[in-house]
Amino acid sequence: MGRLTGGDPSLLRRINSAVVLHALRAAEHATLTEITRVTGLSRPTVEGVVEGLVETGLVVEQAAEEGATRRQGRPARRFRFRAEAGHLLGLDIGAHRVTALLSDLDGRVLGTLSKDVDEKAPADERLERLRSTVAELLRRAGVPRGSLRAVGVGSPGIVEADGTVRLCTALPEWTGLKLGERLSRSFKCPVQVENDANAAAVAEHWKGSAVESDDVVFVLAGLSPGAGSLIGGRLHRGYGGAAGEIGALHLLGLGATPEALLSTTNEPLHPLDEQAAAEVFAHAREGDAQALAAVERFTQRLVHDVAALVLAIDPEVVVIGGWAAGLDYVLDPLRDELARCCLRPPRVTPSKLGEAAVATGALRLALDHVEEELFAVESTVTARR
Amino acid sequence: MGRLTGGDPSLLRRINSAVVLHALRAAEHATLTEITRVTGLSRPTVEGVVEGLVETGLVVEQAAEEGATRRQGRPARRFRFRAEAGHLLGLDIGAHRVTALLSDLDGRVLGTLSKDVDEKAPADERLERLRSTVAELLRRAGVPRGSLRAVGVGSPGIVEADGTVRLCTALPEWTGLKLGERLSRSFKCPVQVENDANAAAVAEHWKGSAVESDDVVFVLAGLSPGAGSLIGGRLHRGYGGAAGEIGALHLLGLGATPEALLSTTNEPLHPLDEQAAAEVFAHAREGDAQALAAVERFTQRLVHDVAALVLAIDPEVVVIGGWAAGLDYVLDPLRDELARCCLRPPRVTPSKLGEAAVATGALRLALDHVEEELFAVESTVTARR
Repeated sequence: MGRLTGGDPSLLRRINSAVVLHALRAAEHATLTEITRVTGLSRPTVEGVVEGLVETGLVVEQAAEEGATRRQGRPARRFRFRAEAGHLLGLDIGAHRVTALLSDLDGRVLGTLSKDVDEKAPADERLERLRSTVAELLRRAGVPRGSLRAVGVGSPGIVEADGTVRLCTALPEWTGLKLGERLSRSFKCPVQVENDANAAAVAEHWKGSAVESDDVVFVLAGLSPGAGSLIGGRLHRGYGGAAGEIGALHLLGLGATPEALLSTTNEPLHPLDEQAAAEVFAHAREGDAQALAAVERFTQRLVHDVAALVLAIDPEVVVIGGWAAGLDYVLDPLRDELARCCLRPPRVTPSKLGEAAVATGALRLALDHVEEELFAVESTVTARR
Repeated sequence: MGRLTGGDPSLLRRINSAVVLHALRAAEHATLTEITRVTGLSRPTVEGVVEGLVETGLVVEQAAEEGATRRQGRPARRFRFRAEAGHLLGLDIGAHRVTALLSDLDGRVLGTLSKDVDEKAPADERLERLRSTVAELLRRAGVPRGSLRAVGVGSPGIVEADGTVRLCTALPEWTGLKLGERLSRSFKCPVQVENDANAAAVAEHWKGSAVESDDVVFVLAGLSPGAGSLIGGRLHRGYGGAAGEIGALHLLGLGATPEALLSTTNEPLHPLDEQAAAEVFAHAREGDAQALAAVERFTQRLVHDVAALVLAIDPEVVVIGGWAAGLDYVLDPLRDELARCCLRPPRVTPSKLGEAAVATGALRLALDHVEEELFAVESTVTARR
């Protein structure tokens, strides 16, 4: 039968509440008459809904302006959405640092804080470092922990729907970690964990290099590349959360690993050694022949991996982020290769958000969660087989 | 502001009509009282909606059973959905044959007809062949052309949203053909053109090897392989309609074309020569060393292309269709390779629908169109930023 929701009065109340809140959030403030006009709801319905929203603290009556009161009798009461009624966190757990980003309910950033962490730090130490970063950020901003409404987290690895890390080669003790559950102990609000490249894709779409497109592939370039995709504006996670794990292509007998390709000696680089990788790129820039050859090998591999992804997904835009160091070697060869194998090659652009991409995307996911809860009335009426 | 549709009475009427039609279609027949109970709508609303649906011919009152009438006075009137009130076509335009599939509004197949066509036939001849197939099928089934409500078409090539073929190497004069527009002249109902592998993916999900999964990759194996994907039950076309064009991977310097790989001589096979390809597979089965080596080369390439697709999309199921001839060589190597490079390898299964897949998928797309029009009330109320 599908879902038939024709006669559910509580659903109708929820829809009306979301519609009013949505209207108030879009305007700076509004009278009941204005809300009635914009929403198409009846005056008594609007009055009831606004009263309920004032009780929850999400809406407040504006203080009347003195002058206006005197001149024309009692002015119409004005209401506004209280973005300060709650707060959101976006967290980025990286190999070398952790970052926290704090915002209000409109997603306006109120503060950010990063701390370094050793790439070999065990899981407990890394999580403790993240917790202390959050505590310090909240203290500095004067925001009580109880005001948090949702927390988004970006992490390396394949992340399952329940926040468990299914596989992660980048961080010690990370595979199998119940990351969502562990972090939930520190917060009373929902915690959503997402793969870091996925979070970055969301961020570039929100306020980065891909704001104008709903079909985006974000590539986190580096020694173990990953990718995240938006399809029709929605994150594509894949059936098992492993979509975009293009790094695994090198298992297909297509050659050595990226860390071997970028090495100028017989020893592969350490997969997390950004410094060593940056040095190879620096030497290549100075004209060192061995380094140039290594960069060439490495770039070819990355370009092939990304091209395979582009042929599978057919995005409008490809955003390359991750390493700042080697990007100038990657963009043009990638554009050339895509022009060769795609009928309509996607636009290739560097990340605009850089190191802030993952935390920004995690924040946006937290904001999505709150908007879903407060404002969304999508798919409420569905009647298909 | 997004779309606020709170106060639109015609929208409400449309939703109520869809809800009632949906309920009637799910049941064999129903009384007004039963419809009222199932839908949660008021009695007067149900009466008005049913009356309107009877006028359009989509709903009919059942003749009362004589016995029932006598025993207990006038029995409650019963209504049923008239699946015979309209018809749908699914068309498959292939290199060697064209196929038409006819159904009622429930998607129940009433007849099918195929005709051979020369692989070198110009576009006009191929279209004329398709038209005569449709005309004969309608005549045999006794269905007037005016009863058609929607036509779905599966075609090789990259197909744009307006039904224009952007690129097609498989059929003569097909690139640039305004296929949707050309076919629309033969029908008074909407015509929807879709890439053949995409249509086949939809078909396997509807009534083939992937009915239980919403995350499916369908591979049309052959000398120029293509693929179609369902993500969350919806067709993924890509931004430019080119998603899954994995055949282009061979342009990436990864080796020769499939038709060269499968050749046992120095001359590549003709890309459309199914017979020659089948012969190579047959010789391999007989133990011919050269043929075995050719099949091995060819299979490795296909397996690599599909693996790249799987890593990008992360489906639950991979359905392999296209050639019946060589499938037994492809399935096991593909399973092995995916087990090696995927954390959670997808299930790999042969197509259940075989040669009927494309026409069946095209029919399903026509059915989707009609259901959208008649029954769908999705996303009618949307209020997000």
